[in-house]
Amino acid sequence: MKKNVHGGDIYTHKGVIDFSANINPLGIPENVIKAAENGIRDSVHYPDVSYYALRTAIAEQENLLSDEILCGNGAADVIFSLIRAINPKKALILAPTFAEYETALKTVCCEIRYYDLEEKEEFKAQKNILEYITEELDIVFLCNPNNPTGQLTDKGLLKQITEQCKKTGTYVVIDECFNDFLENGEAYTMKEELENNSYLVLLKAFTKLYAMPGLRLGYCMSSNCALLDKIKESTQPWNISIPAEQAGIAALKEKQYVQKTKSLIKKEKEYLQQEMKAMGYKLYGSKANYIFFRGTDTLYEDCLNENLLIRDCSNYRGLEKGYYRIAVKSHEDNVKMIKCLRKYMPKDIQD
Amino acid sequence: MKKNVHGGDIYTHKGVIDFSANINPLGIPENVIKAAENGIRDSVHYPDVSYYALRTAIAEQENLLSDEILCGNGAADVIFSLIRAINPKKALILAPTFAEYETALKTVCCEIRYYDLEEKEEFKAQKNILEYITEELDIVFLCNPNNPTGQLTDKGLLKQITEQCKKTGTYVVIDECFNDFLENGEAYTMKEELENNSYLVLLKAFTKLYAMPGLRLGYCMSSNCALLDKIKESTQPWNISIPAEQAGIAALKEKQYVQKTKSLIKKEKEYLQQEMKAMGYKLYGSKANYIFFRGTDTLYEDCLNENLLIRDCSNYRGLEKGYYRIAVKSHEDNVKMIKCLRKYMPKDIQD
Repeated sequence: MKKNVHGGDIYTHKGVIDFSANINPLGIPENVIKAAENGIRDSVHYPDVSYYALRTAIAEQENLLSDEILCGNGAADVIFSLIRAINPKKALILAPTFAEYETALKTVCCEIRYYDLEEKEEFKAQKNILEYITEELDIVFLCNPNNPTGQLTDKGLLKQITEQCKKTGTYVVIDECFNDFLENGEAYTMKEELENNSYLVLLKAFTKLYAMPGLRLGYCMSSNCALLDKIKESTQPWNISIPAEQAGIAALKEKQYVQKTKSLIKKEKEYLQQEMKAMGYKLYGSKANYIFFRGTDTLYEDCLNENLLIRDCSNYRGLEKGYYRIAVKSHEDNVKMIKCLRKYMPKDIQD
Repeated sequence: MKKNVHGGDIYTHKGVIDFSANINPLGIPENVIKAAENGIRDSVHYPDVSYYALRTAIAEQENLLSDEILCGNGAADVIFSLIRAINPKKALILAPTFAEYETALKTVCCEIRYYDLEEKEEFKAQKNILEYITEELDIVFLCNPNNPTGQLTDKGLLKQITEQCKKTGTYVVIDECFNDFLENGEAYTMKEELENNSYLVLLKAFTKLYAMPGLRLGYCMSSNCALLDKIKESTQPWNISIPAEQAGIAALKEKQYVQKTKSLIKKEKEYLQQEMKAMGYKLYGSKANYIFFRGTDTLYEDCLNENLLIRDCSNYRGLEKGYYRIAVKSHEDNVKMIKCLRKYMPKDIQD
């Protein structure tokens, strides 16, 4: 059966501290746990096929109409069903980026083109990406901030990309799943472009911010309601569990938790970055709640020996052995990570 | 957005007693609730993409190998992903039957043929169904006992169907989601045919038996591991929530609950059937935990006025106004239903 090509595999590696999945170190808010628990008792019924309560709550939060929201069994579910609905023949994705765009595109036998992010540009998309967006392209996936690099695409360039996509009739899916971890996330979201661009789709998840990847809840936003209806038609009627729906509604009320998260991530990321830079690790991007860096070729195994699971990024297209990603976690965990990174820091630094 | 074409819509009809969804009246077993609750706390992690613990538990219960089990976010999820993996061009389904086979087949633009079940045959499949199974047919869906009729296909005929499908290279999916409610379910399952027929797939769900439709958990069984791998490849990696997985594992231990369920359903179904027959209602099939019958054309609305939600079956292909389905529920609820059915019994009986 399927192997895990992602981080977060605590099942193969039991008892580790998991730095490989980018989950909020504050854990699931207590009120969200309670709501999900209530959802279990309510699960004697089928879910509401329209997910009206959840969509309304998200719409209010996002300042959109509830018909502009489509929920899924995690953002990955939305990616797969979106691609099935559009059925693209030619797609453009970044390299490296989150693997599920490519996996999902392959299920519809889509030809995939890659925009190779360059190490010398700190893996940041450049203006020449516009040359790739032509009329024969059906869809573009942009992850912003990108995973695994944590790098941001400039807002000006994003606007040029979305406008060009509108002209060429190319769907442009911007995955903003990590936007909430940015210090100034509002400055990077493309939400204000939704209204005037029916080719634009934004992706978001509850997974990372509310630390609930096991509950499965994500959504997309688009002013193209015909597209959202088409996705819904190609999906089973009850794709979100009642605990996930109720957890989602409760999560949206957790304003203080979100603020606390941002402060914690800022502080702890600074700590990790300073320590790592001082040790001579080369860091890139890392604008979200994770750090992307180069280490020795054996760092993944070395960390595992210390019971720390990190993300070996060598299976991302466009990366090679030696690139890693770690989540920003609690200070206690981060101290352990720094200790381990010191032990296994690149030889040319140690010498 | 999508409307509910199924039963179980307690969201539009608030405060009703729901006879429209065929859910175990005993409710979710307490240990299953506890397991799902523990699953919420564990949901700070991603699910195990291989669902190893769940598949192993199901395999043990079904006396199969864990690689012969594929789990989904409800049986409906399995239906959709199975159809995507097979990508059939021509399909055969019963009429009437569960609507999601047709909905899912349409997502891959499959041509659908119908085997019309006849009222005069009590909606039971006859031997002439074999004439429909030809080499150009890619897939057959059989629901046994069928939904909404509760009618069973004879085991002998089922064997002829599956053997013919093997010869014609036609996938045959038998939905046994209601098998566990039969008094002698073991006599009707086609499980023993799995080993020698790589075209055979059996569907099952936790939904009805363990009263957990809101948690979303179903599975299929097949000796065709290449097919199961293909389904897995066309699906997002984390399609089952951790609460659902842990609830499923706990549910399989509930042997006593299952026995208690069978006794309750037997007793209460006899009560409903006797009372309904005495009132002159025409009943069909009804071998599972629901009763399929004819009533007046306005019975759905009449019941709703009494706060009882029943399943109006007129939107099933092959049925017309006047066919209904009610779940077998607790004695207290069933007494209310009988009272209501007496109030609104067909005029020709009342006169």
